[in-house]
Amino acid sequence: MLPEWVTQPCPAISATHREAAAARQGQLTKPTGALGRLEILAIELAGLQHTERPRAERVPIIVFAGDHGVAARGVSAYPQEVTIAMMANFAGGGAAISVLARELGSALEVVDAGTLAEVPMPGIVTDKPRRGSRDFSTEFALEPAELAFAFDCGKRAVARAAASEPDLLILGEMGIGNTTSAAAIAAALLGIGVDRITGLGTGLDAAGRERKVHLIDAALVRHGLAGAAAEKILCAVGGLEIAAICGAIIAAALHRIPVLVDGFIVSVAALAAARLNPSCRPYLIFSHRSAEQGHRLVLDALGARPLLDLDLRLGEGSGAALALPILRLACALHNRMATFAEAAVPDRSG
Amino acid sequence: MLPEWVTQPCPAISATHREAAAARQGQLTKPTGALGRLEILAIELAGLQHTERPRAERVPIIVFAGDHGVAARGVSAYPQEVTIAMMANFAGGGAAISVLARELGSALEVVDAGTLAEVPMPGIVTDKPRRGSRDFSTEFALEPAELAFAFDCGKRAVARAAASEPDLLILGEMGIGNTTSAAAIAAALLGIGVDRITGLGTGLDAAGRERKVHLIDAALVRHGLAGAAAEKILCAVGGLEIAAICGAIIAAALHRIPVLVDGFIVSVAALAAARLNPSCRPYLIFSHRSAEQGHRLVLDALGARPLLDLDLRLGEGSGAALALPILRLACALHNRMATFAEAAVPDRSG
Repeated sequence: MLPEWVTQPCPAISATHREAAAARQGQLTKPTGALGRLEILAIELAGLQHTERPRAERVPIIVFAGDHGVAARGVSAYPQEVTIAMMANFAGGGAAISVLARELGSALEVVDAGTLAEVPMPGIVTDKPRRGSRDFSTEFALEPAELAFAFDCGKRAVARAAASEPDLLILGEMGIGNTTSAAAIAAALLGIGVDRITGLGTGLDAAGRERKVHLIDAALVRHGLAGAAAEKILCAVGGLEIAAICGAIIAAALHRIPVLVDGFIVSVAALAAARLNPSCRPYLIFSHRSAEQGHRLVLDALGARPLLDLDLRLGEGSGAALALPILRLACALHNRMATFAEAAVPDRSG
Repeated sequence: MLPEWVTQPCPAISATHREAAAARQGQLTKPTGALGRLEILAIELAGLQHTERPRAERVPIIVFAGDHGVAARGVSAYPQEVTIAMMANFAGGGAAISVLARELGSALEVVDAGTLAEVPMPGIVTDKPRRGSRDFSTEFALEPAELAFAFDCGKRAVARAAASEPDLLILGEMGIGNTTSAAAIAAALLGIGVDRITGLGTGLDAAGRERKVHLIDAALVRHGLAGAAAEKILCAVGGLEIAAICGAIIAAALHRIPVLVDGFIVSVAALAAARLNPSCRPYLIFSHRSAEQGHRLVLDALGARPLLDLDLRLGEGSGAALALPILRLACALHNRMATFAEAAVPDRSG
């Protein structure tokens, strides 16, 4: 059983602030609508943050890492020990998300939500119910209590981040084999053919991808996931970092913190979160469409139109971090441009 | 006759530095290609800047303003005096590009390349051969000497900017009626139907757009622009700010300064520049696809795939400014991520 907080209603958006922000946009010295999606972003953020002047300055990044029993089946181009090595690289400052966090002035927390690491690693928060998930090609990946633990792990991470009163939150992931788990979750949640959802991950060839499709297909049948509830799907084919992100998304929305959603894996966690608690959906801002094949289908199912489309397929929260400057500039334009009256610029003649 | 410098060959790209940058990308702690277009950007910039460590820190913005005789024909939703009022707003800090320049730490220069302003305005560089272009629905918009003056205006602006050794340059425009001029230039250069190129500008309705299409169609016939050379097209239906940008693009490439191209108007200037001097093309990085209908066709003709697609249709250089953080982060990732060897992360098993 998932913890009770998972299904609590998230706070409502402020229609008053959204409308005030929309009215302000109409007065700024530019043709109506000329800033396109930046106007919509500023207005949405205003409603989510209950303010006329939205902000995207304080934006911590939390990366959840986990290992996957199914990685033993050769579903990744990289060896499983890369998960732990990359956690060290995150903490050491050399990974993509480490560089981005520094450039953006974002605090970066790395949470071991379920890797194979035997002892706590320096600079990493260890918060896991077990080392790695089970191989879902032969058994359920997680027991219900382990899934619940992972959701609470996500909630605890959000509570730590919330202490600094963030304007927004970025969630990322690391885990060799996790596109396999994510593709399985998405196929089961959406009832879409595994072949359409499954991509090359971080570097499979065509034959590798075919093995991955067959493995997922067989697991969905074996575990009886057609039409199953999200909770059962997450136990059967989920991963600890994916479940932790799912919990973190709902916990952030409950704290009224908007989440800038990263690529395929985090979007699948968001899809599961929106199934478990639809009231969290308005808090999600989608950063980019990844090169991973199934991402488009997951985004469509969420009614999401992401900001960027740059052929990224890295994860770690990197795509969300890359979109953050767009949000910051959208807020700066909203808050700092002159109005027609202030600048004595004539408005449209018509 | 255009000045002689316009057709001089631009410096070659450094294949050596491009290859060194590509090799470095292959060693960074991420799956090969996982940073998608950011990897390509960093590699291209390395070749253009003749360095293994590309930069996008110092990026001045130059906005060229001009008025258009054709504006008297009701082709814009805004009155003509907005051009001058917006120049004052740029200099006063209240316009979108002013806010973006401050946020990005970019120097902003505004050049009156041909507005109706009768006296030089404070905070604006005045460098124009006449006040406004002629109404191209009844006569040629510019005489050859005026066109040449505008190209030199662009070159002078680039020379001023080059003194600070910029990593990149952003060019923007302002001019009520200039989407009409740009659509006419693009239709003539590409031999594509005016109806396919012409959009709503900054806020026309469908009837206004139809008038705009008929007016451009008639002018192309009247001036005999089918299959005409770029120089004749620019004289016939061009504008002073568009010609100045065309000159600035070629001058920047001659200085080996890459240009981050803004939306529809600047892209049309880039198309004309690439026709006049194809060796400037590699120096162009396309920032965004605007909501203006013809932009896609112009980008296709240039073989350009822009970075952003955010429904922008403002101009001023705003779309290019919004894309600058992507370039900066691409450089930061390229220069500051750890290699597999440095971080002791295992590379792919296959």
